[in-house]
Parts: sequence; C-alpha cells; structure tokens
Amino acid sequence: MDNIVIAREAAAREAIKYLRDKYVVGVGTGSTAMAFLRELHKLIISDSIEEILLVPTSTETEIEIIKLGLAHLLRYPWQVNHVDVAIDGADEVDRRKNLIKGGGAALTREKIIDYWAREFIVIVDETKVFPSIPSKHPIPIEVIPFAWSIIKARLEELGGTAELRFGSGKRGPIVTDNGNYIIDYMPKAVMNPDDMERIIKEIPGVVEVGIFSGKRISKVIIGRIDGSVTTMD
Amino acid sequence: MDNIVIAREAAAREAIKYLRDKYVVGVGTGSTAMAFLRELHKLIISDSIEEILLVPTSTETEIEIIKLGLAHLLRYPWQVNHVDVAIDGADEVDRRKNLIKGGGAALTREKIIDYWAREFIVIVDETKVFPSIPSKHPIPIEVIPFAWSIIKARLEELGGTAELRFGSGKRGPIVTDNGNYIIDYMPKAVMNPDDMERIIKEIPGVVEVGIFSGKRISKVIIGRIDGSVTTMD
Repeated sequence: MDNIVIAREAAAREAIKYLRDKYVVGVGTGSTAMAFLRELHKLIISDSIEEILLVPTSTETEIEIIKLGLAHLLRYPWQVNHVDVAIDGADEVDRRKNLIKGGGAALTREKIIDYWAREFIVIVDETKVFPSIPSKHPIPIEVIPFAWSIIKARLEELGGTAELRFGSGKRGPIVTDNGNYIIDYMPKAVMNPDDMERIIKEIPGVVEVGIFSGKRISKVIIGRIDGSVTTMD
Repeated sequence: MDNIVIAREAAAREAIKYLRDKYVVGVGTGSTAMAFLRELHKLIISDSIEEILLVPTSTETEIEIIKLGLAHLLRYPWQVNHVDVAIDGADEVDRRKNLIKGGGAALTREKIIDYWAREFIVIVDETKVFPSIPSKHPIPIEVIPFAWSIIKARLEELGGTAELRFGSGKRGPIVTDNGNYIIDYMPKAVMNPDDMERIIKEIPGVVEVGIFSGKRISKVIIGRIDGSVTTMD
C-alpha cells in the first residue's frame, strides 16, 4: 500500500475515537476525509455506532455518502440545530494549527460546517505539515463572479500572484458548489494568518478565504507513513 | 410633484457636478440612483458630457441603462481597469456618513463597485438621515444559501431579530443577482458600525454586510424637500 495512504488511514482511524452514538458529524472533503468516511462506514454497517447523522461539507462528499448507501443519514444544516464534531482534512498545517484549505474548492461549505461544530478535528498525513502557511499551496479564495477581476487586481496590489482557477471537465473557470469562482493567491510576504484572513475577507466580493485559524481548531491528528499518529491540541 | 421626488432630484442634480468627460461611472441601485441616471441621460443625449462609460451595481440598474438606450455605454468590471466615481443611494445615513444599504438586495455588487471607485458619492433625500444606524431599517446581509439557518441562529445569539427575506414575484426566499439569500438583521444593542460590519462578515457563509463605513465614502449629498442640498464631506 502507498505510504501516504497508510498515513491518511492512521489519522482517519484515530479520528473515529472522537465519535459517540447519536452524534451529528460534519464530514469534510478530500482524500483524507474520505478515508475517515470509509472507516465510519465500517462502524455503521457493523452496528458499532448508532444513530449517527452526517452533514456534508461539499456536493462531492454528499455523493460519496450516497454511494456508500448512507443517504438516509444525510442531513443539511437546516435539518439539525448543531453539529457535535466536524472531521476534515487540510492542504497545509502549521505548528499553531493554522490551515490552508480549498484545494478541492470546498472551502466555503467546509468553513461553514467546521466552524459551526462544537469540536473541529483536522486529519492530515505528515506531508501536509509546514513551518508556516502558505508554504507550497496558494491561498484559495472563493469570490463572487462579478468581482473576480477587481479582487485579482487588489490581491496583486497587496503583493504576490493571484490566478483565477481553471480545471478539467469545463472550459472557463471552475464554479464552486455555491456558484462562485476560486482565485488562488500566493502572497509575496509572510504574514500572521489571522491578519491575512481578515484583510482578504474585507475585500468586497470575497465570499470566503481558505485560511482556517488555529484558534478555531480543537485538534490536529497527523498520520505518519509508519502508521503512527501524533495529535496537536 | 411629490416632495420626496423633489429632494431626490435635487441630490441627483448636485451629483452630476462631480462628473467629467471620459469618466467611468459606477451607477448605483434604487430610486435616488435612478433619478441620477435620468439626469445623466439628459446630459449624454444633449452631448453635454462625452465618452462616459457606465458600470451598473445590479441587474436592475443594468436593465434601466438598456431601457434608456445606453446599452453601448454599459461596461462590466473586467472591461475597465478602474471606476472614477460611483454614485449610489442609501436606506439610512448617520452623521459620520455610515450607511445602511441593501433594501433592494443589491448590497454586494454595490459594495464591490462603490468601494472600488476612486470617489464614492452617496445621494439621499433628507428622510434617510438618522442619528445612528441601524435606526428604522434592519441590516441586510447577503448569505450563501447553504448557510442561511446557521447564520440566522448566530445573529439571534448576538441579540436581536434575523429574518430570511421573502418578496413578491417568487415563492420562497428572494434570490440575489449573485444567487444568494438575504437575511435582515435588527440588532438589539447599538454598536459601532465598523465593529458590527466586521463581526457579521466574519461569520462563515456571510457574503456581504449592508453596513458601508463612513470612512469609505467621499461625500454624502442630502437633498431636501425644499429643493436645496447639503453636502457632508
């Protein structure tokens, strides 16, 4: 098995320990969150956990839940009055638990559910840990289509590069689950992530910023390629 | 003629004085902005002003521009590299030029264009002036549909009432030009408008807040029912 897969699955199995019967669970987006969903699926079909409900953080995750035969457990925010725990991945994590998220363009629904949850637990493999963020991955920013050119120019004025995201499967820019575009911004200077998030979110037309503050995160579980895990509280 | 109409038209005529040939003009939304657009239309068809371009702040305004036979002057943000001046109305103005906007659900595109403009001039009739904001009108907040129930609950926790906006012409909540919903929030306690704007915008899923800071506004032109105007700098 691929070493990264071992690391992801180790983190996913560790996250399972934080679930309880009757929990409303926010289910993250991406390969590590999907490793978690597969572990959770095993528990559900073996009756090892009872009366769990699942709130997805993207259409992608929603469809995975349906494919696993768990559509009856799917809930949307307006169907529940809280989320007990959200389990989600990240593209980068620093030593203060600050995250870069949004490589899969799901950052807005992720932040909506992850920040709403009573506990927000991040699961990553060890290749996602960096001394500071953003390190290798630009900051994904969801923007109102009407404002894309204005926001791109504003970010370039702040310093660095800002690119409208294109992808496969569609000509033109990718469109998020919320009908918006993504701009990937790599700043020139390192800055405190909380300040960076605030400055970017203040630009009119910015819907959400792919910086998640360490202050909002309960735990980061890091899976290693030797199968061990480390937890940052 | 209705006294309010006299007041609006007085403010609109005063705003015209800030235009120059070759200007890129941001055109606001609502009845006072439309009074401005009609005044501008007179100038254009009489060749009193030349080579003006018009960037609309809503589909509503865009259609008015087309109806006036000015479609050839319409430009979108990605077709111009700046806006010289934006002229827009407001639902409420306080003594520090802070505004409540969004009664017409256009707040997001308005803030995108108005804040981008080199000069942002507000035109109101005197019934829109209040000692503090929000006074009579709740704060309109554009939200991602996925998050509406979470944001409504969060605002109610902050204190006050928060209602999803319904309207005529469609069953269910109204949908903005950007595909989102509006929540009208009337806070319980008076707070500094800049702090209020920041606190609300930080809630994940909030796209834009209908508080416009006086710090971002060049001038407020107040039209009076006697036909006179007062300008706040």
